[in-house]
Amino acid sequence: VRRDRAQAVLERVAAGTLAPEAALDQLAADTVDSLPYATIDHDRALRQGFPEVVLAEGKSAAQTLGIAERIAAKGEGLLVTRASEAVQQTLALALPGSKINELGRTLYLPPTHPLPRAEGRVLIITAGTSDLPVAEEAAASADAFGLDVERLTDVGVAGIHRVLAKRSLLDGASVSIVVAGMDGALPSVVGGLVRHPVIAVPTSVGYGASFGGIAALLAMLNSCAAGITVVNIDNGFGAAAAAARMLRRNASD
Amino acid sequence: VRRDRAQAVLERVAAGTLAPEAALDQLAADTVDSLPYATIDHDRALRQGFPEVVLAEGKSAAQTLGIAERIAAKGEGLLVTRASEAVQQTLALALPGSKINELGRTLYLPPTHPLPRAEGRVLIITAGTSDLPVAEEAAASADAFGLDVERLTDVGVAGIHRVLAKRSLLDGASVSIVVAGMDGALPSVVGGLVRHPVIAVPTSVGYGASFGGIAALLAMLNSCAAGITVVNIDNGFGAAAAAARMLRRNASD
Amino acid sequence: VRRDRAQAVLERVAAGTLAPEAALDQLAADTVDSLPYATIDHDRALRQGFPEVVLAEGKSAAQTLGIAERIAAKGEGLLVTRASEAVQQTLALALPGSKINELGRTLYLPPTHPLPRAEGRVLIITAGTSDLPVAEEAAASADAFGLDVERLTDVGVAGIHRVLAKRSLLDGASVSIVVAGMDGALPSVVGGLVRHPVIAVPTSVGYGASFGGIAALLAMLNSCAAGITVVNIDNGFGAAAAAARMLRRNASD
Amino acid sequence: VRRDRAQAVLERVAAGTLAPEAALDQLAADTVDSLPYATIDHDRALRQGFPEVVLAEGKSAAQTLGIAERIAAKGEGLLVTRASEAVQQTLALALPGSKINELGRTLYLPPTHPLPRAEGRVLIITAGTSDLPVAEEAAASADAFGLDVERLTDVGVAGIHRVLAKRSLLDGASVSIVVAGMDGALPSVVGGLVRHPVIAVPTSVGYGASFGGIAALLAMLNSCAAGITVVNIDNGFGAAAAAARMLRRNASD
Amino acid sequence: VRRDRAQAVLERVAAGTLAPEAALDQLAADTVDSLPYATIDHDRALRQGFPEVVLAEGKSAAQTLGIAERIAAKGEGLLVTRASEAVQQTLALALPGSKINELGRTLYLPPTHPLPRAEGRVLIITAGTSDLPVAEEAAASADAFGLDVERLTDVGVAGIHRVLAKRSLLDGASVSIVVAGMDGALPSVVGGLVRHPVIAVPTSVGYGASFGGIAALLAMLNSCAAGITVVNIDNGFGAAAAAARMLRRNASD
Amino acid sequence: VRRDRAQAVLERVAAGTLAPEAALDQLAADTVDSLPYATIDHDRALRQGFPEVVLAEGKSAAQTLGIAERIAAKGEGLLVTRASEAVQQTLALALPGSKINELGRTLYLPPTHPLPRAEGRVLIITAGTSDLPVAEEAAASADAFGLDVERLTDVGVAGIHRVLAKRSLLDGASVSIVVAGMDGALPSVVGGLVRHPVIAVPTSVGYGASFGGIAALLAMLNSCAAGITVVNIDNGFGAAAAAARMLRRNASD
Amino acid sequence: VRRDRAQAVLERVAAGTLAPEAALDQLAADTVDSLPYATIDHDRALRQGFPEVVLAEGKSAAQTLGIAERIAAKGEGLLVTRASEAVQQTLALALPGSKINELGRTLYLPPTHPLPRAEGRVLIITAGTSDLPVAEEAAASADAFGLDVERLTDVGVAGIHRVLAKRSLLDGASVSIVVAGMDGALPSVVGGLVRHPVIAVPTSVGYGASFGGIAALLAMLNSCAAGITVVNIDNGFGAAAAAARMLRRNASD
Amino acid sequence: VRRDRAQAVLERVAAGTLAPEAALDQLAADTVDSLPYATIDHDRALRQGFPEVVLAEGKSAAQTLGIAERIAAKGEGLLVTRASEAVQQTLALALPGSKINELGRTLYLPPTHPLPRAEGRVLIITAGTSDLPVAEEAAASADAFGLDVERLTDVGVAGIHRVLAKRSLLDGASVSIVVAGMDGALPSVVGGLVRHPVIAVPTSVGYGASFGGIAALLAMLNSCAAGITVVNIDNGFGAAAAAARMLRRNASD
Repeated sequence: VRRDRAQAVLERVAAGTLAPEAALDQLAADTVDSLPYATIDHDRALRQGFPEVVLAEGKSAAQTLGIAERIAAKGEGLLVTRASEAVQQTLALALPGSKINELGRTLYLPPTHPLPRAEGRVLIITAGTSDLPVAEEAAASADAFGLDVERLTDVGVAGIHRVLAKRSLLDGASVSIVVAGMDGALPSVVGGLVRHPVIAVPTSVGYGASFGGIAALLAMLNSCAAGITVVNIDNGFGAAAAAARMLRRNASD
Repeated sequence: VRRDRAQAVLERVAAGTLAPEAALDQLAADTVDSLPYATIDHDRALRQGFPEVVLAEGKSAAQTLGIAERIAAKGEGLLVTRASEAVQQTLALALPGSKINELGRTLYLPPTHPLPRAEGRVLIITAGTSDLPVAEEAAASADAFGLDVERLTDVGVAGIHRVLAKRSLLDGASVSIVVAGMDGALPSVVGGLVRHPVIAVPTSVGYGASFGGIAALLAMLNSCAAGITVVNIDNGFGAAAAAARMLRRNASD
Repeated sequence: VRRDRAQAVLERVAAGTLAPEAALDQLAADTVDSLPYATIDHDRALRQGFPEVVLAEGKSAAQTLGIAERIAAKGEGLLVTRASEAVQQTLALALPGSKINELGRTLYLPPTHPLPRAEGRVLIITAGTSDLPVAEEAAASADAFGLDVERLTDVGVAGIHRVLAKRSLLDGASVSIVVAGMDGALPSVVGGLVRHPVIAVPTSVGYGASFGGIAALLAMLNSCAAGITVVNIDNGFGAAAAAARMLRRNASD
Repeated sequence: VRRDRAQAVLERVAAGTLAPEAALDQLAADTVDSLPYATIDHDRALRQGFPEVVLAEGKSAAQTLGIAERIAAKGEGLLVTRASEAVQQTLALALPGSKINELGRTLYLPPTHPLPRAEGRVLIITAGTSDLPVAEEAAASADAFGLDVERLTDVGVAGIHRVLAKRSLLDGASVSIVVAGMDGALPSVVGGLVRHPVIAVPTSVGYGASFGGIAALLAMLNSCAAGITVVNIDNGFGAAAAAARMLRRNASD
Repeated sequence: VRRDRAQAVLERVAAGTLAPEAALDQLAADTVDSLPYATIDHDRALRQGFPEVVLAEGKSAAQTLGIAERIAAKGEGLLVTRASEAVQQTLALALPGSKINELGRTLYLPPTHPLPRAEGRVLIITAGTSDLPVAEEAAASADAFGLDVERLTDVGVAGIHRVLAKRSLLDGASVSIVVAGMDGALPSVVGGLVRHPVIAVPTSVGYGASFGGIAALLAMLNSCAAGITVVNIDNGFGAAAAAARMLRRNASD
Repeated sequence: VRRDRAQAVLERVAAGTLAPEAALDQLAADTVDSLPYATIDHDRALRQGFPEVVLAEGKSAAQTLGIAERIAAKGEGLLVTRASEAVQQTLALALPGSKINELGRTLYLPPTHPLPRAEGRVLIITAGTSDLPVAEEAAASADAFGLDVERLTDVGVAGIHRVLAKRSLLDGASVSIVVAGMDGALPSVVGGLVRHPVIAVPTSVGYGASFGGIAALLAMLNSCAAGITVVNIDNGFGAAAAAARMLRRNASD
Repeated sequence: VRRDRAQAVLERVAAGTLAPEAALDQLAADTVDSLPYATIDHDRALRQGFPEVVLAEGKSAAQTLGIAERIAAKGEGLLVTRASEAVQQTLALALPGSKINELGRTLYLPPTHPLPRAEGRVLIITAGTSDLPVAEEAAASADAFGLDVERLTDVGVAGIHRVLAKRSLLDGASVSIVVAGMDGALPSVVGGLVRHPVIAVPTSVGYGASFGGIAALLAMLNSCAAGITVVNIDNGFGAAAAAARMLRRNASD
Repeated sequence: VRRDRAQAVLERVAAGTLAPEAALDQLAADTVDSLPYATIDHDRALRQGFPEVVLAEGKSAAQTLGIAERIAAKGEGLLVTRASEAVQQTLALALPGSKINELGRTLYLPPTHPLPRAEGRVLIITAGTSDLPVAEEAAASADAFGLDVERLTDVGVAGIHRVLAKRSLLDGASVSIVVAGMDGALPSVVGGLVRHPVIAVPTSVGYGASFGGIAALLAMLNSCAAGITVVNIDNGFGAAAAAARMLRRNASD
């Protein structure tokens, strides 16, 4: 029962026009999603000012456009991920005001009433330039979730001084998202240098025994730095969503 | 160069008893760990009041005892994980004041000057009773990191009303650690119900095609709830360390 | 020996024109499929009014057409699965009266004398919209097997209230086919809510560590709900065939 | 709200001692499991006369006994699976009237008011004698679910005439559970011979490239007979639970 | 129908005491294994003078003894494989005249009327001394199948001259069984040196990335020598059975 | 030393123009392939009247043509496998007298002096029509090796009577090559029916958990019929080469 | 601090214009890469006369050109690997003096002041002609690192005399790079014949159970020849880099 | 022909008592290992002063003793690896003068005439203390091969300053053996810091998704530092053998 429907029932009870027994049946027979707590739904974590998210992969430009326009009409904002160039262009034309991240293959249309920015800063670190598309998907998604983003690029462990040289950048972040393919070693090094949460994102960058990112994924799950957490291979969006859970959990937005 | 050694060099330069060129060589030849920034080390994330951590698995009771006594002498506290019953008893005798979590196979000796408790609460949720040892490793570790812990046990998705019945408990937590073997489905459900960070811990509970926890691990990496992060199979300690990164990152402790 | 051929042999024995010894040789030398019990064959489960089934994948439109026309000529009905758009159009032209399910990539030509509909209803549940092609293959196949189908779409566990809101639909079904990719968690939830058979269909929807549906397959094999059975990845047809075995086993059709 | 608690609230509304608005809050704040539909739970499929099920594997004899006695006290019956000899003996002493299946490693204590037997018969077919423990777990479980069981043993496909010789047994069954390790080929043959549901159970019987049952599992998932469904490796209990879903779904028990 | 039973039916037809129609029913109703061709059974390939084979692994000494005594009583010979020392001793006492191969863990009781020896010779080649148990299982099995065996031991490819030095031994064989673990490279070399059939047996010898014989198995399946065939890991018995199929296929024994 | 070169050395020794010591050095320093036994080479098993074999996969039509023409010029015959349509046509034009097997993707140019046909017959059995390309690669290769081939098609185990009906065909063969994808069950059934060698060829036919033929491969390696041997996935050529080793090993050709 | 910057600081200390304490802060606050030892970086092993290396795979011709031109301008030389034909041509036009290895898909622009050639010779051995692209990547890379290269092609173990015939070539090398797909057996044979370092390179050549080079990789990791080391599948460049580490480690270049 | 036998033949030719043709046959018929070049054998790389090596794993103490005594009698030295405590003690008693490395589970008996030590130094680096057994196997083996060894222990990448602090130790080595389990990240860091050869040894240290060392193995094969080579999991001996190939290849010992 939506709150108003439930209230109507109860008022009829109060008015004596509905017997308690009958009211009980009516409330119980109602579906779960009409109960007050059913306002939570699968978009809960990302809504309340968060944009809706559409995974464009496996959908045609037309299909994605259809979905996007329906969402955009609600004014709540929209984030499209894994969008091909064609999808990006189609949507950009239809949805004025949307921002494209070409490398990250995302399109973002801000909500009418944007979220207040969260406190803190997400640092997105990449091991190599080939990891940039995944890093940019994370960056664009984090931005859409109202997080401030800083980038540290191409600091893989084979040249360890590169990341060491950026200690103040590391220390100033609230959450680090570390994006790496191949040996997936960078999150272990970063995790040893910082105290804040480190979200490791394995990428499918590599060949042969990298097995499309499995090598990096396993390395990250077995990190010798304590407290590193991991998301799916190439899942830049998921890392940003995890960062949003961390930085916005106390927000009253 | 430890700061005093470096200062001595510089003072000799100021005094004119050492040429700049020679001073330069002397500073450069020095090892990295004597530079000021070398205060960072691999224990940094867990030190500053955090206990040292010893993984007892694969060590004899005598070996573990030796290490533990050396650490305990420093007064900084000590957390021993994967401790067999024999190790637990040996250490408990030697280290008065230590606390044992039998199910979680941990022993914890608090530091002389304990950490202030962090704000917020970690909710540790288990799918089945067989997942409890991993959950208790997480609980004991989180406690050692100064986090307050609450438990929600045996609420696997095959009886979905059990977790739904605990919405207020879920909503009141700052971080959820969700421990599940077999199909690893519980983190997806929890992730859809809460806005805060969800750390998924796959366990090796199951048989046959569970492959020692791989089935649960893969399910969690592919969670349909956005922003779930994952740690290694049976890694209750790691989940607690991740939670500590989240709840203590701003702490000035 | 087809029954008439065998009878002819025996009548010659009765007539004294064939010695028992020779008759014995003749019967024994005959192939198995000419014996009375040889009426069973590999199509048995699906025949007796069931349509013949052609897997179009890996065949050209011309090849599939050739096979389809030969079967169609027998009037027993025909179900073509995994048919590309080209195959669908080619066959639809050649076989008037056939029905196409575009999303499910099937074409169905009913038999001259259709099966009576089975009692009971198959509920086809999908976790996400990307699982729809597999769900529709199941739906079209079930329909061809004479089963009544109802659909429940996009009710993945990350928004658990969605499936809970449909309890009466769940309770009214005789068999549920649950189609899910990614974490494959939905069958466990459904299996805990209903008493009737649940057939889990993992799909190849996902990326990275979903490994083309392995993650979902393993989750389903390890379901914490008792009595869930599983078919091959993306095998909507197989799920429908299993449902037909369940709902038609007592049928005298 | 348990029905009586909810009714009490409503009666107070009817009596005018509780405002509708306040009543609404009270009902909404209540936990899910106190709502009428919360009678469903994770045991639903197996309850209503079904025994509770305890997986003894990984529990001590004492722990299992503790759980078993608590359940037995309710008089609803109890099925213990994966019970070691020690557990079997401990429980048999404590729970008079319980039946042990040694090969299947199960113990069954019937409920005070046993289920009426289901109509139809489950045929449990094994490829080799080494598959018998899994088959007997299925048989004992099926019996506990009120299903009649028949067995057909050691009819692997390397001697194909053995299963062909039992056509009437096959034809007379309502559901077949086919248990096989090694090449896992038997379900395909059986599936081609019968019209009723076939539940395939891979076993860990074999060595080398059988990989603890993976070879058989994969063969069964790829069966060339349409409509075969599969459960986890060595999961005789799960196969019986699936059969119970099929044969009891219409039962009003 | 066993041939005599069928003949009896036909003679009654010839005598006019049974109508052809009724005879037909009687023959058709009979089970498959009573038909003339049903003399073939799953032991066919190995019987007709071949010993019965019992895999002792996973059976107690008592169980194996029970089975072995029943077979031995028929006088057709018996080969027991994967027999522990206890099983070997128990059976040797009970079955006088049986031969034990300790390394190969086999026991062989010759039939009352032994097979004539097959023409040709099986050469069993091992890469290292750790492969000997598998090689001896093959040797003892081949001997039981009436094949003459020669051995060439410890000629792994890291010392290639060792196998090259035995060209005449290689050339004189009719079939080679090549047993190797670790890199599994020896069959490729042997296959390039001889024209006769080469049966490759991977062994579980090795550690780390040998994965219990998978490395050797894959190498053998991908042999660069044409026409190598492969059996399961550690399956010495299977290799001998394959050799028997090759050398005895024309035998009229 | 080619025999003539060695003879020249020895004659110089006999003539007294070369000291034995010096001759010894000269002979020893010579490379292996100039020694008399070096007539064996990697083509040995397939030469002596056998055609050379070229794997066209991964080569351009031009490259393959270049190699083929060089071989053809020697008059020893040529078998090209995995040839695309383009390669088939290019070579057929350039090499008059060559035979194409379209389905098997092979081209065969007989040698000037063909091999005498081997005794015995190879029976190539396929489970389904999709397995035909691999079966035809085997058939064309066997023919090129001088073996007589018979085919038995589409007799998968889901319709077990189909293979049983062909007992005389099975019994008349010297070697069976059994080609099957999906569950890979057919070789086990055939192996139980015949005494001669059975070569199992897994194919990549299937989808989902067939994993490109791994399911069939594992089933075949774990066959419950004794003495089945296996070749690589889709390796029809290898199976034919193995059959040639079996049927030609005694040939004096 | 770059050396000059650090020197400036120290000179100010010497001049009395900067207090030692303040100088210390200034030096410590500086980033790592400005310290003298920061001349080492991730290119260190390959620089100092070595060319920079660009992996062209996954980059467009334009992108690769941009990077290449920037590097070329420094005059330090440039090696581009995994370059498509288009990339090769684009770069060759833009970078006069560059050398293309078509088969190896590399382009090499020598530095203005080339490295002195290293002592010793790298022997690159290939099992089959399909392994040549990987071998040529190794050859071109080794050349760019200033190593002399010799080739030994198509000497797979199925024709073992081919490699044996080249003993003097083997014995004369300083390092062998052995490139093989399929069964990956060649490094074991070579490793048994030579005393110098053997670097094994598995290739993705093969089909079916070669799993894109995994079979060869595992064989090489399990080589029965002691002291073989392995690089990633198809990683010809890596093998050359490893050889350069071996042959140039003492070089003062 | 052993050289003397061949010389005898040639002298008979020189003496005119043997015709060149007959001498040719005699030489050709002789086995390969009697030819002069047959002095190479599988121990070649490790002999010439190197000790023989015995892998004790899988052998009883008695068996290992038997082999060891036979080798020791030759005075060439002996290295036993993977020796249990029992084997170590048994051999130490029987072979006076042998040295035991308990942690590395090796026993080494020096040859009567020890190898001259090789130039250069092997640095054995371990990530954690649990990796020490593998590191010590490498150290003891390297020592037996005449290499000087230095150790750098517990410098995993989660505390990156630890390895950075040891730059001079790193720079002074000729070869580094880097031993690491879990994430296997250390070789990538070391490889970026040094120019000399880096041999990476993955260990089975870890749990869960470390899969017995696979995670570390894959990380090392995919190292982002160029020119890292890898040996089998836990193969400390193999790494030492590889180092010996590098440091002794020019030795005239």
